[in-house]
Amino acid sequence: MVLKNQVEWALHCCSMLAGLPQGKYLAAKDLAEFHGVPKEYLGKALQRLSAAGLVESTLGPAGGYRLAKPVAAITFLDIVEAVEGRRVTFACTEIRMNSPCRVGKRGTGKPCSIAQAMYDADEAWRSHLRSLTVESMLAGAQLPKEQVDATKRWVEQRLK
Amino acid sequence: MVLKNQVEWALHCCSMLAGLPQGKYLAAKDLAEFHGVPKEYLGKALQRLSAAGLVESTLGPAGGYRLAKPVAAITFLDIVEAVEGRRVTFACTEIRMNSPCRVGKRGTGKPCSIAQAMYDADEAWRSHLRSLTVESMLAGAQLPKEQVDATKRWVEQRLK
Repeated sequence: MVLKNQVEWALHCCSMLAGLPQGKYLAAKDLAEFHGVPKEYLGKALQRLSAAGLVESTLGPAGGYRLAKPVAAITFLDIVEAVEGRRVTFACTEIRMNSPCRVGKRGTGKPCSIAQAMYDADEAWRSHLRSLTVESMLAGAQLPKEQVDATKRWVEQRLK
Repeated sequence: MVLKNQVEWALHCCSMLAGLPQGKYLAAKDLAEFHGVPKEYLGKALQRLSAAGLVESTLGPAGGYRLAKPVAAITFLDIVEAVEGRRVTFACTEIRMNSPCRVGKRGTGKPCSIAQAMYDADEAWRSHLRSLTVESMLAGAQLPKEQVDATKRWVEQRLK
């Protein structure tokens, strides 16, 4: 059970978009080039971020993306769920209902202790991702100043 | 990102095997019949539990499975990892190394803040599953007494 690669790409793109000057956009092809990932697949991830209201885009030759919210208002979970969907990591198929010894053929409406444990574990994962934001991502980055400056110059040449 | 159905089946099978009398076995075909799941696919899950040392089996016409450890010594995580593998849910492909602005072409050896956050979330999920055992699963079951008794009788007729 592994997340799509686009989750990694989307997280790094949000980190990069967080550094854009106010009102400026960066094109999908530049985000793809910078991260060394295929433009078409990255485009799909960016569209999902856009559908979730995390980034906004302009179309046309000067088109591109920027964050749609402050960095402290975008959580890791927002980005992960935008790309991966909100489906719980445990799919209960209610096999307890198949038991030949079952009393009553209707469900209780409550998950069994096994499903509940798996849902709680899923929530522990989501809860950690909900506690982290693009702001905390930037704070933890620890890149060499030389690299930060080079990236700024690279981005400035491509701003829309 | 969803776990295999065999994870659900394996958890329910461990719950059932926990109720067997000392030294007795239950056949894979009976476990499959009771849970209403395909014997071949369940067989693979049981083999994985066996490879992980969680259940032990005897071969031959009187063959079957039983737990290989006390119920308090088998965690949900043991069962989930036996069936699903131990692979972390976030696969970092180190796209930061693709940056045209990268200073130095070697990695730092440390995960970036994004990968670290995703690994920590994965560990929060595993940690919850590690805190729960087959013993706690049974304690939380809350089945009607009538159904528990009927299940006991069903199992007794099939013990090896």
